[in-house]
Order: sequence, then C-alpha cells, then structure tokens
Amino acid sequence: MLLYLLDLAGVAVFAVSGALTAARTGMDLLGGLALATITAIGGGTLRDLLLNRHPIFWIRDARYLVVIVAAALLSMLWSACLPPLSHALLVADALGLALFAISGAQVTEADGHSPIVVVLMGTMTGAAGGMLRDMMIAQVPLIFRQDIYASAAVAGIVVYLLLKAAGLRSRWAITAGVLVILGLRMGAVLWGWHLPRLHPVG
Amino acid sequence: MLLYLLDLAGVAVFAVSGALTAARTGMDLLGGLALATITAIGGGTLRDLLLNRHPIFWIRDARYLVVIVAAALLSMLWSACLPPLSHALLVADALGLALFAISGAQVTEADGHSPIVVVLMGTMTGAAGGMLRDMMIAQVPLIFRQDIYASAAVAGIVVYLLLKAAGLRSRWAITAGVLVILGLRMGAVLWGWHLPRLHPVG
Amino acid sequence: MLLYLLDLAGVAVFAVSGALTAARTGMDLLGGLALATITAIGGGTLRDLLLNRHPIFWIRDARYLVVIVAAALLSMLWSACLPPLSHALLVADALGLALFAISGAQVTEADGHSPIVVVLMGTMTGAAGGMLRDMMIAQVPLIFRQDIYASAAVAGIVVYLLLKAAGLRSRWAITAGVLVILGLRMGAVLWGWHLPRLHPVG
Repeated sequence: MLLYLLDLAGVAVFAVSGALTAARTGMDLLGGLALATITAIGGGTLRDLLLNRHPIFWIRDARYLVVIVAAALLSMLWSACLPPLSHALLVADALGLALFAISGAQVTEADGHSPIVVVLMGTMTGAAGGMLRDMMIAQVPLIFRQDIYASAAVAGIVVYLLLKAAGLRSRWAITAGVLVILGLRMGAVLWGWHLPRLHPVG
Repeated sequence: MLLYLLDLAGVAVFAVSGALTAARTGMDLLGGLALATITAIGGGTLRDLLLNRHPIFWIRDARYLVVIVAAALLSMLWSACLPPLSHALLVADALGLALFAISGAQVTEADGHSPIVVVLMGTMTGAAGGMLRDMMIAQVPLIFRQDIYASAAVAGIVVYLLLKAAGLRSRWAITAGVLVILGLRMGAVLWGWHLPRLHPVG
Repeated sequence: MLLYLLDLAGVAVFAVSGALTAARTGMDLLGGLALATITAIGGGTLRDLLLNRHPIFWIRDARYLVVIVAAALLSMLWSACLPPLSHALLVADALGLALFAISGAQVTEADGHSPIVVVLMGTMTGAAGGMLRDMMIAQVPLIFRQDIYASAAVAGIVVYLLLKAAGLRSRWAITAGVLVILGLRMGAVLWGWHLPRLHPVG
C-alpha cells in the first residue's frame, strides 16, 4: 500500500518534470506527453525488469498512466498560461528521485538482497527516469553534473536501511529516507552544496 | 502470421534507416551494420522485454538478423554507388514507425491489456528503434522535434482499436492503422504538418 | 568458473574506464562511482535481460559490485595523484570489450542459439557498457567512430566459434577469442587501423 503511494506520487512528479522540460525545449503536445511518460515510468520499469517482476507496474495497473497523462497535461497548461515557478523542474526532479530511490530500495530489500545491491538498485530506480529525460534532449544527465545527486540517493537509502535494522517501523524508515534525499538534493539546488570534484586528467 | 510479416517488414525498413544514417555520418561498414541492427531490433526487443515474451523475437528466429544484414548491406551499397533518394531516410523511418506501432499494439491487446496500455506500448514499440538510432549519434530523436511523430502513432493505434471494436477483421484493422500512421507522418515530412508547440518557460 | 573470471575481470576494467572518463569530465566522487558502475554492469545486464537469465549477475552475486567500487576508487585515486597513463582509458575499454564479447558469446552458445545470434549477442554484451558510458556524457560512442570496434568483437567471436567447432577445449578457444579482439582493437588505437569508410550521402 505504502509502496503503491510512493510509486503513484513518484510518477506524478516525474511526469511534471518531463512535461516542464518539454515545454522549455519547445516540443509539441504529444512530444511533451511522450517525454513525461518516459521520465515517469523509466525508473520503476528498470526496477521491475532487473528484478524480474512481471507484469511491469504500469502494465499491471493502468491507473499510473492516467495519473501521468493528467499530471503532464496540467503542467503543460500551467506553463502555457501562468508565470513559471522558479526551480519547479528541479524540485519535481528531486521529489521523484527521493520517492523512487526509496521505492526501489524497499522492493529490493523485500526480495532478500544484500545491502550493496539494495543501495545500487534504489539509486538506479530513483535516477533512471531523470537520466532518460536528459538523454532524450541530448543533455548530460543531472546525476553526472557537479552537485549532489547520486550521493543524496545513497545517503537516504543508507538511512532507511539503518533505521529498519534498528527496528523502526517501515513507514517511518521510508519517510526518513525520502526526507534525507529531498533535503540533501534541495540543499544542492538552493545553496550549491557539492562533493569534492575529481581532477581532470590528460 | 500477419504479425510475423509486420515484424519482418519493420526490421527491414528500420535497418535501411539505420544504414542510411550511418552512411551520412561517415561510419565504417561494421558501424553501419551495428547501427542498422540496433535501429531494427530496438522496438520489438523493448516490447518483448516489457511484456515478458521470451525468447525475444530475433533470438527465437534468426531470420530477422539475416533480413537486417541484407537490408543494411544493400542500402550501404546503394548510398555508395547511386544518387541519394530525397527523403529516403524519413520514409524508411515512417514505415518502421507505422509497422512496429501496430505490431506492438496488436501483441499487447492479444495479452488482454487495457486500451491506454495498448496505446503506450504500441507507441513505444514503434518509436524505440528510431529513438535509439538518434541517441547513438547524439541527436535529439525525431519524436521530440516539432512535427507529428508520437501523435501519428497514437492516432493509428486508436483507429486500429476502434475498427477492431467495431467488428472489423484483424487484417483490415491492422492495414488501416498502418496507413493512418504512414499518412500522418508523411504529411508532416512533406508538407510540414504539426501540432501546436508548447510555449517555452523560464 | 571461467565465465565467472571473464565477468569479474570485465567489470573491473570497465569500472576503470568509467572512472577515468568521469575524472576527465570533472564529475564528483559519486558521479564517478555511478558512471563506473553503469559502464561495468551495462553489457552483462543486457545479456542477462535478453536471454532471460535471472537473477541478473550482479544481483545474484554482490561481489561484482565490491570489485567495481574498489576498481573505481583506485582509478580515481590514481588519476588524482599520479601522472596520467597514455591510452589508459582506451586500453581499459578494449579489455572490457574483449572479455564481455566472449562472455556474451559463450553464454548464448551454451543456450543453444545459432551462430548469427551468438555473434550479435556477444557484440552487444561487449559493446553495451562503453556505449552507455559515452551516451551518458553525450558523446557519440566509440563503436560508431571510424576505427575498428564492432568489427574486432565480431572477428574474435568468429574465431572463438571456429576453434570450438574444430574441437579445441573451451578455455583455449576463449583465450584466442579474447586475444584477437584485444589485438585488433589495440592495432586500431595505436596504429590507426580502420575499415573503409562509408561515403556520406545527401
């Protein structure tokens, strides 16, 4: 149930981020819907394929697609009629990262895999949608630019795993994990937090 | 049987579009074969992975790969010896989109999924090959540029579903769906048809 | 057992190539780990997904991920402290291509597929990791540039298949296949060997 809500909220915010990206690059309506859909289903689809969970979440339950279409149309309407919200795209992306990273981690842990697999699968689930979105418009994905992105996901998943190991109830561990990722990522967006850069070599 | 022909024709025309793209960007022979193959198998492979149909179509039946290699070699030979055909690449891409969109829709519908899932899966099956091709050469895929692409696939799949619901025999519904996609897409290529663009936001 | 060693060595060298690429483009530590991981697991993951082998190799055995993290951290440390090795990135990539191409070919052959499927699956397994790495940084993948890449993989796999058909023991056929790919690829890197280019058309 909680997982279902994580996934529903995750597809909605990633659909918004895809639709806003489409609007910024001057795509038409269907291109916008396509980019919103790919962004929204990318992470969970990768999670389900890699863990061999069939049917894939949005094939099993078509409500996800209805949510995506509604969220994408509303954001395109907004961006056509109202002044842009500053950082709207980055906030939607941060929320999607947080929700899907913890959803991916939770599913992988429930399947009984080791912590390093849980961390990797959660990070991939959270990052894949935004990565696909950025690759589609031929940009280097956010995850590979210089601020905190993968590291936020890893930190949140580790917090989630530690709290669960400490005996906390699942819903609180999940909430804490999501908030850690969102907090770190928003710190990077708003105040430029970052990790040490690697030195370029020849 | 009809599905088999759709898929065979689809891989052939997508192989041509991949080989022509390779020739334009100055790749060598094997690079051209690789791009033709990825373009040709991309859509159907995604369809089979997402619907958990194993073995994947080209693993089950190696004839697809023979068709791809033959189509790619012939188009590379053509482009090395004869004057280029205007719009050859866009026509091949439009045909591939039309054939694979209806093939993906038909398979998904036969599995008993809801219409919105059928439309999405068909569109993805049709668009994935060309999308991979364009991503490989670091270009923004056709589907995200300003003319009719995803919308053509959606329209053709909806026509296919309506005709089948109206009791038409499968082969005629398929033919109509393919023709609608091809017609809309060629209208976009030849006469610049397009949907309203989204306004860029800040 | 031999397959296990091929895969372990393959992920290690691809992790090095991903980490070096990250260092060159000025990513931070976690971005570097992410790129190293994607490069290292890309090919084998595609192989396991397409052949429906579950659990995926790095989900089944978390040692792969430990090797990747160690290899990535060591190369980032190296590139931060010591003078760059000339061609280090291209050599790591060539080794990864050779190891994974033969690993993919061997698994596909053991599943009883036809030679053309074995060649394609081996080439994809070998090339996918580096292809993902280059797409992530919005570059045209090495495989589509003008020197020998896919052709080296194809040649090595054909040699492997012929030697096995001639009755040679598996380990020697594997070794020969790996050396052929590595030799052809290094010849291309060091002495500019290449196949005839395709003529660009209008």
